[in-house]
Amino acid sequence: MSRFFAEENSVDAVNARIGPDADARLSAVMTSLVKHLHAFIKDVHLTQDEWSAAIDFLTRTGQICSAERQEFILLSDTLGVSMLVDAINHRRPAQATENTVLGPFHVAGAPARDMGARISFDGKGEPCLFEGRVVDAHGRAVEGARIDVWSDNAEGFYDVQQPDIQPKWNNRGVFTTGKDGAYRFVGIKPVSYPIPHDGPVGKMLAALGRHPYRPAHMHFIVTANGFQAVVTHTFVGDDPYIGSDAVFGVKETLVAPFQRTDCGETLWRSPFDFVMTPLEG
Amino acid sequence: MSRFFAEENSVDAVNARIGPDADARLSAVMTSLVKHLHAFIKDVHLTQDEWSAAIDFLTRTGQICSAERQEFILLSDTLGVSMLVDAINHRRPAQATENTVLGPFHVAGAPARDMGARISFDGKGEPCLFEGRVVDAHGRAVEGARIDVWSDNAEGFYDVQQPDIQPKWNNRGVFTTGKDGAYRFVGIKPVSYPIPHDGPVGKMLAALGRHPYRPAHMHFIVTANGFQAVVTHTFVGDDPYIGSDAVFGVKETLVAPFQRTDCGETLWRSPFDFVMTPLEG
Ligand SMILES: [Fe+2]
Ligand SMILES: [Fe+2]
Repeated sequence: MSRFFAEENSVDAVNARIGPDADARLSAVMTSLVKHLHAFIKDVHLTQDEWSAAIDFLTRTGQICSAERQEFILLSDTLGVSMLVDAINHRRPAQATENTVLGPFHVAGAPARDMGARISFDGKGEPCLFEGRVVDAHGRAVEGARIDVWSDNAEGFYDVQQPDIQPKWNNRGVFTTGKDGAYRFVGIKPVSYPIPHDGPVGKMLAALGRHPYRPAHMHFIVTANGFQAVVTHTFVGDDPYIGSDAVFGVKETLVAPFQRTDCGETLWRSPFDFVMTPLEG
Repeated sequence: MSRFFAEENSVDAVNARIGPDADARLSAVMTSLVKHLHAFIKDVHLTQDEWSAAIDFLTRTGQICSAERQEFILLSDTLGVSMLVDAINHRRPAQATENTVLGPFHVAGAPARDMGARISFDGKGEPCLFEGRVVDAHGRAVEGARIDVWSDNAEGFYDVQQPDIQPKWNNRGVFTTGKDGAYRFVGIKPVSYPIPHDGPVGKMLAALGRHPYRPAHMHFIVTANGFQAVVTHTFVGDDPYIGSDAVFGVKETLVAPFQRTDCGETLWRSPFDFVMTPLEG
């Protein structure tokens, strides 16, 4: 092998440069990255113009990022990378509740509310009772579980996307289970919405003939002592986008029932139990 | 196969979304990109924290880009991507002059100079005569070849990196060959210099135990009617970084002689012939 770079030895030429004192894990990750990146370029025989377009795309993606906008996470989401990283890091027993993407709209510090309380205060949308239990793998109630929930409003926007609209913390709340592990709260039946698609990632989706929509979902983070955090959504099964979530967040087990009720104003009921997985070690 | 995303079908789940009207080449490139990107993540079992670090790295890389700074090209260069793309797009016959990276310091519009003229006007560095011929594969002189040359100064900076220092166009010039295909000009023996390393890419190199230096080189773009453009450098063979160019630009055939002379002020002579490759088709 020549000591110089050539098409034939490109991966080794780059990886051989890593110094002896580099962190072992960083070395392993970068070595694999270079291997797969070069294989991609060789497989498609990337042209100089395509390379320029890629540099330009990455640059625009970086430049649109701000405190309110993370376009690289959108890119990761839309290429299935976010869900893949989540999946390989959260392999769980068959009956346990699965994770899905956190998404960009979680806000820490939502108000604690009494069990059964409303979280939706703008009078819009179709009221829906969310209820169920937090249990362990044996179906035993988990007491003291913290349930942080958030959804969009009837127009498909999270409160943080409409910061001038009152009340604050609309469609958000935190609940804590009692001895029975049960939870219940009244929100709205969520609606589908597009991810931000006025930037480079939206252009990429359009060029690929893909839409930017997510099927309607309610976000949950369920945490309890001794258990893995469950970061997930429940999905509305008859949503037109249920089979084509722009960020690949849907899992079969996360599609929840949404049942019509006869309970006056509360038009829907969505029952769902969270099955917690013990922390390892 | 489930219609939903899972670790096992992640590549197909993403690629199946590409619409029927998407450009065929774009589809092929993105399909391969997703395949290799997911394989990388699975191979190294990328953690959530490493994913976050990658998002942060890409974001900082994008945010440092400006009209004067292209950090994604530096990233491409330092991972061997730029040279690989160049290599697969410029496979040439064995005797033909090889390409290397253009680099960020080329400026269009450098002044045309008379054959044999100086290009270095700051009185610094060791004067060096560059000379040779532009020929075709049969050794026949190429008349009317345009030779655009540029190098750093004795301190390792290109003129564009020191915009306040006169004269303009120092260490740059454009020459045109006559009937004999010959060229000659007097510059300085170039010196090694670091690529910009105060940003995310510099931090990456440091973490990998890599230095940011390029071995000393003179840049050339040689163009002539009917021939492929040659975008290349000639290198100083005894440079301490000749075997470890930070951007992998060195090729064996591009290492040029730098010989001491007895010609008064001109301390060095570097002979090099450019062998042009005909345009295809
Ligand atoms: Fe959401
Ligand atoms: Fe250079």
